[in-house]
Amino acid sequence: MESTARDQRFYQRLAEVAVAPLWRIPGTTDPEPVVDEVPHLWRWRELAPLLFEAAEVMDLGEEAERRALNAYNPSRKFGTTHNLVAGYQLVLPGEEAPTHRHTPGAIRFMLSGSGHTVVDGEPVLMEPGDLVLTPSLTWHDHRHVGDEPMIWLDGLDVPFVKAMRAGFYEDYPGRELQALLTSEGDSVRRYGAGLAPANDPWAKPYSPLMNYKWSTAYEALRRLAEAGADPHEAVRLEYVNPVTGGHVLPTMACYLQLLVAGTATRGLRHTSSTVFCVVRGSGHSVIGGKRFDWETNDFFAVPSWTWYEHAADPGEEVVLFSMSDRPMLEPFALYREQRA
Amino acid sequence: MESTARDQRFYQRLAEVAVAPLWRIPGTTDPEPVVDEVPHLWRWRELAPLLFEAAEVMDLGEEAERRALNAYNPSRKFGTTHNLVAGYQLVLPGEEAPTHRHTPGAIRFMLSGSGHTVVDGEPVLMEPGDLVLTPSLTWHDHRHVGDEPMIWLDGLDVPFVKAMRAGFYEDYPGRELQALLTSEGDSVRRYGAGLAPANDPWAKPYSPLMNYKWSTAYEALRRLAEAGADPHEAVRLEYVNPVTGGHVLPTMACYLQLLVAGTATRGLRHTSSTVFCVVRGSGHSVIGGKRFDWETNDFFAVPSWTWYEHAADPGEEVVLFSMSDRPMLEPFALYREQRA
Amino acid sequence: MESTARDQRFYQRLAEVAVAPLWRIPGTTDPEPVVDEVPHLWRWRELAPLLFEAAEVMDLGEEAERRALNAYNPSRKFGTTHNLVAGYQLVLPGEEAPTHRHTPGAIRFMLSGSGHTVVDGEPVLMEPGDLVLTPSLTWHDHRHVGDEPMIWLDGLDVPFVKAMRAGFYEDYPGRELQALLTSEGDSVRRYGAGLAPANDPWAKPYSPLMNYKWSTAYEALRRLAEAGADPHEAVRLEYVNPVTGGHVLPTMACYLQLLVAGTATRGLRHTSSTVFCVVRGSGHSVIGGKRFDWETNDFFAVPSWTWYEHAADPGEEVVLFSMSDRPMLEPFALYREQRA
Amino acid sequence: MESTARDQRFYQRLAEVAVAPLWRIPGTTDPEPVVDEVPHLWRWRELAPLLFEAAEVMDLGEEAERRALNAYNPSRKFGTTHNLVAGYQLVLPGEEAPTHRHTPGAIRFMLSGSGHTVVDGEPVLMEPGDLVLTPSLTWHDHRHVGDEPMIWLDGLDVPFVKAMRAGFYEDYPGRELQALLTSEGDSVRRYGAGLAPANDPWAKPYSPLMNYKWSTAYEALRRLAEAGADPHEAVRLEYVNPVTGGHVLPTMACYLQLLVAGTATRGLRHTSSTVFCVVRGSGHSVIGGKRFDWETNDFFAVPSWTWYEHAADPGEEVVLFSMSDRPMLEPFALYREQRA
Repeated sequence: MESTARDQRFYQRLAEVAVAPLWRIPGTTDPEPVVDEVPHLWRWRELAPLLFEAAEVMDLGEEAERRALNAYNPSRKFGTTHNLVAGYQLVLPGEEAPTHRHTPGAIRFMLSGSGHTVVDGEPVLMEPGDLVLTPSLTWHDHRHVGDEPMIWLDGLDVPFVKAMRAGFYEDYPGRELQALLTSEGDSVRRYGAGLAPANDPWAKPYSPLMNYKWSTAYEALRRLAEAGADPHEAVRLEYVNPVTGGHVLPTMACYLQLLVAGTATRGLRHTSSTVFCVVRGSGHSVIGGKRFDWETNDFFAVPSWTWYEHAADPGEEVVLFSMSDRPMLEPFALYREQRA
Repeated sequence: MESTARDQRFYQRLAEVAVAPLWRIPGTTDPEPVVDEVPHLWRWRELAPLLFEAAEVMDLGEEAERRALNAYNPSRKFGTTHNLVAGYQLVLPGEEAPTHRHTPGAIRFMLSGSGHTVVDGEPVLMEPGDLVLTPSLTWHDHRHVGDEPMIWLDGLDVPFVKAMRAGFYEDYPGRELQALLTSEGDSVRRYGAGLAPANDPWAKPYSPLMNYKWSTAYEALRRLAEAGADPHEAVRLEYVNPVTGGHVLPTMACYLQLLVAGTATRGLRHTSSTVFCVVRGSGHSVIGGKRFDWETNDFFAVPSWTWYEHAADPGEEVVLFSMSDRPMLEPFALYREQRA
Repeated sequence: MESTARDQRFYQRLAEVAVAPLWRIPGTTDPEPVVDEVPHLWRWRELAPLLFEAAEVMDLGEEAERRALNAYNPSRKFGTTHNLVAGYQLVLPGEEAPTHRHTPGAIRFMLSGSGHTVVDGEPVLMEPGDLVLTPSLTWHDHRHVGDEPMIWLDGLDVPFVKAMRAGFYEDYPGRELQALLTSEGDSVRRYGAGLAPANDPWAKPYSPLMNYKWSTAYEALRRLAEAGADPHEAVRLEYVNPVTGGHVLPTMACYLQLLVAGTATRGLRHTSSTVFCVVRGSGHSVIGGKRFDWETNDFFAVPSWTWYEHAADPGEEVVLFSMSDRPMLEPFALYREQRA
Repeated sequence: MESTARDQRFYQRLAEVAVAPLWRIPGTTDPEPVVDEVPHLWRWRELAPLLFEAAEVMDLGEEAERRALNAYNPSRKFGTTHNLVAGYQLVLPGEEAPTHRHTPGAIRFMLSGSGHTVVDGEPVLMEPGDLVLTPSLTWHDHRHVGDEPMIWLDGLDVPFVKAMRAGFYEDYPGRELQALLTSEGDSVRRYGAGLAPANDPWAKPYSPLMNYKWSTAYEALRRLAEAGADPHEAVRLEYVNPVTGGHVLPTMACYLQLLVAGTATRGLRHTSSTVFCVVRGSGHSVIGGKRFDWETNDFFAVPSWTWYEHAADPGEEVVLFSMSDRPMLEPFALYREQRA
């Protein structure tokens, strides 16, 4: 049946009552996910200078609560992938980023310098390589310690939470910085050794362990490497919530991965999207058919359902940190993966 | 610090490397969800004629696999709310809608006529008021029975699945209609009475009961009404998965609600979005401050975090069917509600 | 090494400090469970007269709180099996069994007459064939209704709870009968139709449905029978907790089973123990190699890990109710079954 | 109503058909658990010599598979408590305890010497203070290493498994010792650091971590001690299954507890029973009103629902290891505790 004038009037009338004919909606029978996001690499060499320049452009605490540069996927206005946002954040000696909380949850992977992130009253010491959590609705702020600039990789689920129309935000009542309620390292003390306090069970929907120390994680990774590598994932550990054995946050999973110098992984794709950060070494990834060469502290986005593989340069042991939105898919049986 | 030419150059250079300064991203500190969707009502009186006219414009099975009119929120191109899509679907005597499957899950609430929806080989008889499930990745088709046009309300999670980049679609291999594997009513026979087959446990992530019969549901609602009504929710039952006690689908919850003639509910809002369909009676809702008068078979969208209340006309017992995206929020502790 | 006088002194000295040499403890390397309990049948024809005679021997409410005859396994002083106790209970017109509660949970399968069991304030009408729950620590009493004697089969987990040293018991404070808090049939109204009240989630560790009506259960069983029978289990339904899909009580599972006239099941054994009650028809079971002929209202014990099979007499449709301690084994992966 | 001759005949006739009148069954209305077991202390000084003497009385591997002295509660023939059995086990230089498996699960707390326990092919190095698991149905054997006698405390759930009629036992087919499938420390490598292998999820009902090293556990305990002590439990950690956050075995929970020199705990009782082993220091406990003075390596039983409190001698930091049957009670909501 060809589209006659009558048909056109019919479709016009549908639009007038805000309905669309299913048989004309594009994408209805697409056999696979349609992914707008593109693979992309953000380079430390390019961004670090801009981060320091930002310190001249804006005053932390005065003009804004955070000095963060958010990487956005070139196909989008906001979001490193459709669900995750990553970026660098800088706190200079003497500075503090004030206390607030929000429904989006965040992870911080420390790159250089040191300082405290205070989470619901617990001062958490951040040192290079540490993974620190500031889960959904926990009060948090960042306080510089020492002489060096404090820089980390931020990872948040903001695009997802906003898409779900569930974003709430609150400044700390009355004053700028929350009170300290415990001593430093309290959560590591309680949950950091495969044992748990026997007297007060943890009931919140996120990990009670706020800091996953670099030395512990890297040592575990090296030990696991002795047992051999998976062809698609190399040697890979997940940071786990010690009271559930599950992901660190309800929305995000974090991993640490090792590629022996000169080795490469085979192609892999999955419906989850991922942001990788290069913790050690140099190499390259081929993502959606495009090659990206990377160095320490660079980070890159692998969109959903896009083939990718990594290679470590000869003579370079590579450690990759990554965050994934896989926990957002699993409750709905929407996670799917394919191996080349 | 005023925005000088130097600042402008700085911000320009950020854009060149695909990063955004967090302190300039709009909405970062919005205290509450920003909801673009608007409340809207779709009227049976207006849409029913268009649905029949659609039968003249397109041939079911020839030109397209489904004759469905999808209601889109006036603020969007696609989606009745940001996560759900609803609409009417029509199958005429002698017609069949061919077999396919997809990751989006669907519910069907029958409005008139009768027919079979075949779900993974089970012919499910649909009669007015029945709720029928075609969960994610189940093979399904629709086959007319009797003399009257078969019309139902569709409800799917397509906007969510597409936003999550997880939509897969497949036509039934080889032929147009799947083979029947069981007799009619098999799932009701196994799971429809508060008992369950003792010998083969059900392990899929959705309800094994494919049909929730109107007579059973309505009778349960009338009985529950004897115990009184909640001021905000009136008398409300959830259709439950008999092997988990949870929602019927991993992504969608369905409810049946009764308002005694002449009564009204008090204001309520939640981060989940809802599509209501009027099964019986007439009345009105006030949604986001706007009044919508409705009659039997009309349906309307209540966006996230938007105040709403319902009223039954004098002399009119009202029954509302509704579907909600609440299961999409719960795994992440993103569901929140407020009562006036 | 033969047992010398020196060895004997050694073993004697062990006993003096309350230790036993593992290598001399009998049963340490038994390949399969050692089961002391024996199969046994209790006949309605023999016990019913004794039950009425009990009414002459003791006054209900005066001398004792319950007029129950507890079947004990001939190999034991207490317990129909090692974990379960079953028996008949009688309440005569005009009588009431006072309110109390205890950690053991109970099920009641109604045999004749009618009356109310009040459970935490809800009057539950018991009619022949109904399964009624009085879960752990619920206040309960039994009140006669009508003209006929009210008789039911009791099933409790007392032997298990006592063996676990966890038995607590309490009489209702102040008066003999608890106050009624809801109208009759409240839990059926809320949970009896595959739907659940949407506004107040149930959080207790047992089924919120206190009564599983005979007509519903039997009709479901007949419908399921149309789909054919399992060779070892015939046609078998489990009564399920509608908010979890699991067993009705944390410790006990209940089933209803149908054997078509003249048919038989094949041999089966499992580490759980079972008490069967004949609801309809006559036939026989072979348990541990011994034949037991039964009629309506008889009940019999099948010990753990003991082979058994059932046969319905020609011309007699058989319905068996059963209770099992399988839920006590499952949390520990101790349930195992074998089919002939 | 006094017990007449007629009554006596009635009760006699009940016994003839294997039923008991509920109103005459002792203990039916006991308000609290009736506990037969008694508190008891087993002294290292007394038992160690007997353990070495046992090596002269029986040949390991020849006459018996294990050289273990099982502590039995003086009120019972078998079982340190009603659910648990504890005891010392000895393997001398050059000896091996052959491979077998059984449904009872076991924990081993190492006291002196060193050696391997091989668990399903993984050689687990046992050193003083280590907690090693040999869960239900895992193949396991013990192989001496070094020059010193290897002695540990055994803890098993045998009394429970036997009472549940669910004990199965099997020798390793064909040869005496199972083959090694992984290198030493494999499970610690995979799960011992708050991270988990990302590529192959663990699905068994017990902890994948077979060894909880002393140095890690003790360091965690010392760190937790800095945060203060609970008045009833002092400083107490639970060894947890890293993939569930729950107990190490489905039936048993293990704890490590510290009392600062000269401090004491207040009275506590619970429906679970416990075996405590003194890892460091000396002191005493008052259990059920009776005082027990203990030293390093002694162990003692605290029966269910029995008040107890511990005190560390002046100048002696005390570390207590304990195993509990609490996981056997929790699935049934039978765990209850009271604090003085």
